[in-house]
Amino acid sequence: MRKVFQAELHQIGEELTQISQLVTEAMRKATLAFEGADIELAQDVIAADARIDFLQNDLDERAIDVLALQGPVASDLRMIVGSLRMSASLERMGDLARHIAQLARLRYPANVVPDNMVETFREMAQLDIRISEQLSELLETRNLEMSKEIYAANSRINELHAGVFKSIASPDWNVPAVSTVDLTLASRYFERFADHGVSVTRKVNYLVTGEWHPLSESGV
Amino acid sequence: MRKVFQAELHQIGEELTQISQLVTEAMRKATLAFEGADIELAQDVIAADARIDFLQNDLDERAIDVLALQGPVASDLRMIVGSLRMSASLERMGDLARHIAQLARLRYPANVVPDNMVETFREMAQLDIRISEQLSELLETRNLEMSKEIYAANSRINELHAGVFKSIASPDWNVPAVSTVDLTLASRYFERFADHGVSVTRKVNYLVTGEWHPLSESGV
Repeated sequence: MRKVFQAELHQIGEELTQISQLVTEAMRKATLAFEGADIELAQDVIAADARIDFLQNDLDERAIDVLALQGPVASDLRMIVGSLRMSASLERMGDLARHIAQLARLRYPANVVPDNMVETFREMAQLDIRISEQLSELLETRNLEMSKEIYAANSRINELHAGVFKSIASPDWNVPAVSTVDLTLASRYFERFADHGVSVTRKVNYLVTGEWHPLSESGV
Repeated sequence: MRKVFQAELHQIGEELTQISQLVTEAMRKATLAFEGADIELAQDVIAADARIDFLQNDLDERAIDVLALQGPVASDLRMIVGSLRMSASLERMGDLARHIAQLARLRYPANVVPDNMVETFREMAQLDIRISEQLSELLETRNLEMSKEIYAANSRINELHAGVFKSIASPDWNVPAVSTVDLTLASRYFERFADHGVSVTRKVNYLVTGEWHPLSESGV
């Protein structure tokens, strides 16, 4: 019984890592589609999101079965409930990558980002990709050292996100209103993606150490 | 044992309804703050969000205790896991009401919404308030009839949300870029609020009927 249980727990952990890897892949492609106005890549990301949703559902069903059949307690129970939450965050990260791809598709063949903002969005996107890569590693290795880098990347994204709004507020902002909408949404998607990455990171830390460190959530 | 268990399940249900009522209160006040540039009301909403977060945490801890101590199976287990998910959605709805209040505070003493968009945002806000009122009733009574109205309100919000973007794209859109950002975010917050309301509604339906009806998620 115990052996089956350990195998099930292991499987849940594997699936989490697998979803996280698919999310990284989605964000990597979404970023390329977004930066290069590549509609085929955008379609790929949009289509591949169903796979993430499927895996999340599968993981959740598996977790509920383990709860029903094994009646876990203490840290095992917390691990399983934590997995349900982490899978929800990862699924949401997949949605956000899809939203980025949808923006690219919506504006094709034009670019979403005007020339003077390309660097800012590139940095945000690279940080998001890095966060989800590190998340996969964190989920796989439970090496909590990874967390600091994820928190730092998230802080930098928050700065860049605020910077986008500052640029838009400056008197020499002269892009069309529709682009302003796109950039507002894109910036928010990148920022939310990182935020969910931080949620998962905190959850892993909690499951490993048993200590919960609430961070104040970023505002608008 | 069974009696304690039923009492615990009942308590979890009560807490969900209570959180939902606080969310309604938050959205009602946030809307007034947003429409009337009322900074005190905005501060109220922002401060009161901690209470929602606290209750969500309390509910989650209670649910985990029930899982550990009672080892529920079948529909009871699904009800508890479902509660964890619903509490997460409700907590997020509280956050979105807070974001609306934060926008009002950020622009105080100015109004966020220009005159020609007041009606649109008023309708969105009223629909959101209605959705969360109906959600409380749905959680309390399990009367699934409520669901149709919630889905209909959500569809209408999606239309209004698309309408905001259409207005912004029109050639005679002449509000400052900063306002365009605010309206983009506000519209998205109202739309997301309804979307989470729909998630909770679907979850209640699933728990009552055992049937899951996935709806295609709205795009950008």
